[in-house]
Amino acid sequence: MLPVSQIIRRKRDGGELTPAEVRELVLGYARAELPDYQMSALLMAIVFRGLTPGETAAWLDAMIRSGIVVDFSHVPGVKVDKHSTGGIGDKVSLCLAPLVAACGVPVPMMSGRGLGHTGGTLDKLESIPGFRTDQPVERFRKIVARCGLALVGQTSDLVPADRRLYALRDVTATVESVPLITASILSKKIAEGADALVLDVKVGDGAFMKTPEDARTLARSLVRAARAYGKPLVALLTRMDRPLGRTAGNALEAIEAIDVLQGRGPADVVELTLALGAEMLVLGGRAANQLEARARLRRALDDGSGLERFRAVVEAQGGDPRAVDDTTLLPRAPKITAVHATRSGWIDHIGCETVGWLNVELGAGRRTSADAVDPGVGMVFIRNVGDRVEEGDTLVEVHHRDEPAAADVVRRLADAVAIGDAPPGDVPLVLERIDE
Amino acid sequence: MLPVSQIIRRKRDGGELTPAEVRELVLGYARAELPDYQMSALLMAIVFRGLTPGETAAWLDAMIRSGIVVDFSHVPGVKVDKHSTGGIGDKVSLCLAPLVAACGVPVPMMSGRGLGHTGGTLDKLESIPGFRTDQPVERFRKIVARCGLALVGQTSDLVPADRRLYALRDVTATVESVPLITASILSKKIAEGADALVLDVKVGDGAFMKTPEDARTLARSLVRAARAYGKPLVALLTRMDRPLGRTAGNALEAIEAIDVLQGRGPADVVELTLALGAEMLVLGGRAANQLEARARLRRALDDGSGLERFRAVVEAQGGDPRAVDDTTLLPRAPKITAVHATRSGWIDHIGCETVGWLNVELGAGRRTSADAVDPGVGMVFIRNVGDRVEEGDTLVEVHHRDEPAAADVVRRLADAVAIGDAPPGDVPLVLERIDE
Repeated sequence: MLPVSQIIRRKRDGGELTPAEVRELVLGYARAELPDYQMSALLMAIVFRGLTPGETAAWLDAMIRSGIVVDFSHVPGVKVDKHSTGGIGDKVSLCLAPLVAACGVPVPMMSGRGLGHTGGTLDKLESIPGFRTDQPVERFRKIVARCGLALVGQTSDLVPADRRLYALRDVTATVESVPLITASILSKKIAEGADALVLDVKVGDGAFMKTPEDARTLARSLVRAARAYGKPLVALLTRMDRPLGRTAGNALEAIEAIDVLQGRGPADVVELTLALGAEMLVLGGRAANQLEARARLRRALDDGSGLERFRAVVEAQGGDPRAVDDTTLLPRAPKITAVHATRSGWIDHIGCETVGWLNVELGAGRRTSADAVDPGVGMVFIRNVGDRVEEGDTLVEVHHRDEPAAADVVRRLADAVAIGDAPPGDVPLVLERIDE
Repeated sequence: MLPVSQIIRRKRDGGELTPAEVRELVLGYARAELPDYQMSALLMAIVFRGLTPGETAAWLDAMIRSGIVVDFSHVPGVKVDKHSTGGIGDKVSLCLAPLVAACGVPVPMMSGRGLGHTGGTLDKLESIPGFRTDQPVERFRKIVARCGLALVGQTSDLVPADRRLYALRDVTATVESVPLITASILSKKIAEGADALVLDVKVGDGAFMKTPEDARTLARSLVRAARAYGKPLVALLTRMDRPLGRTAGNALEAIEAIDVLQGRGPADVVELTLALGAEMLVLGGRAANQLEARARLRRALDDGSGLERFRAVVEAQGGDPRAVDDTTLLPRAPKITAVHATRSGWIDHIGCETVGWLNVELGAGRRTSADAVDPGVGMVFIRNVGDRVEEGDTLVEVHHRDEPAAADVVRRLADAVAIGDAPPGDVPLVLERIDE
């Protein structure tokens, strides 16, 4: 291979790297042979120059090869997973995975922790007493075989290159690159054993992608790269201009996901669960079309088989299955403070990223990866965007500990909710479907 | 200060860093507090985004502050130095510095070693038996006071930030940035104690700047940054589309520089020495204008006072002063092989960068900084661009050791000399003068 500095130079100057070069760089970095300072310079050049489809495919392939790929040949059927790019109140994985599994599609789901202002599925799951997300690969395979799903964290055997690269990108301002994000997301999903994928690409103030254009670019990159790897992928662009559902916070969201499985979830969470689930059932070959898929999912909600799957997976992963039926067993914050409307009108918009960061300040998320999260704290959105409110109405309940910081959060949260004189325009929940 | 990743992000996105941020980053890196991987990501962002004049000034200032600045208050007069961006056969420093010193302008010259395909002044000087370029700062100050010049290498006390940064830039493809090159060149020259500077910006195939546009951009950046620091700077853009003078190689070039001081140097080397020297004399206040300056320089050539200064500095730096008068005391390669013209015509051009790399292969330069150079090897250009040649004429004599590699160099050197059917267009030695 050429000296690494010459390869970096070629990328810097707009040239293309060969698949062999990409493989050497990524695997060399995973093995700690390529120094951080050369990788970070290359990553910054990639932020500016991008990666061609060929380079992206090679990068993805090398990421996957840096670790093991989970073998699910012992589980019949097409394994399908869902990934969300993250938002405020996005608890969909918790209700979606058991519901889809109840419809016969195995869901081997490896999730992440809270990132920046957005919550993380693992943190939400761990608010269920006893629930363990740190399952070894062998156990992960067995739980999927037994329950039709598993809800675990990524083990260090899978895509070690991503862990090293992500840590480096985080401190070198090289996170924001569509091909690098593409390879990071897909490598983990492919390594966990998924045969097909549904992507929920969040769009709006509360998402990493602020505009439909950016979200579309990422979605197309993901569809193209996944297809090149032989994995069908469908992406839905969904709105994140307001919190999803009624809650943000770990136990609060787990409870809301259980509400969905009990047939009494908020309309937007239910609708998004059905929309993503329908794509998963079609990809998994368990429904011929969306209509049939939605009917099956509705049935699994109504007959309690989705809830039953969730109970099973909670128990399989060490959690207390009684908590699924008695959510008072989940932790709660000791204090609740209401945020009131300072005027009458319609909620015009909610500063969603701000809300996310305020939730982090309450303790629901992490400022650094070493922080512990507080499972009980969070927010309940009594009103949401588009709702009519009268002065003095409760807008949000803040669930918090008795900390001085909480009072400040409450104050700033009030400022994040804008009330206008007329109802805002309607924004559909699913903005766009991208499958090519 | 903000987290470093946020500062990198701002630069990446086209924003400006504050002087305080630049200082923290550069000095933090010099102290090994800022990790390599963040600096290399920032450097790559700078390659793409550049630095504003304000950022460049702050970067330069921080580089200088990372080490000591040599105090020349004990030497009367305006201290003036020259820097060349490097080329093939550029031995001008060796004859220029003593000549200018002989005219009353002190020259505190700190030079570098061969870099890439270009030779280095220190390597050339060290081909003189006994000559030591590794002089401590105290000794450097004394030699300038006694001889009016000193010809030394940079000590580790000066601009330690540059040493660390350059090593990093070299392996991360971040050398090619006008503001970073500007700060690197000027910081060393200002720290060595120069009050004013003349820059020889080489242009052409054998130079780092291949086009007049690139060279002009660098020259303007240097003039502007030096002026902002209160140091007058004049840049000459000079041709490097062919070897300068008759020789390339360490001892061969030292001998040619002595030839110049003895009044029998090749016309182009003499002319460039006079052109750069005249600028130095005017900057140093020893001549009112170019005409007067040239007359003084000519006198110092004719009366031997330039040669006398060179003899003095050689002796002061531990070299054998007899070598100045008897150049057979300098090392010579054991073998000479001629490269002949394969056809009649005019030399149309010489692949100058190739010639430089072939010289490195002979042993005249370094592939890695750990390599030792061979002082005796090199090339003598019997003919140069524009000369009429007949088939079979000697074009170049290759001075080499009896190595298999040398035969290969001879073969490839022949290919680097293109002979055409008509004389090529004339290219002036000095292309442009830039002082603002």
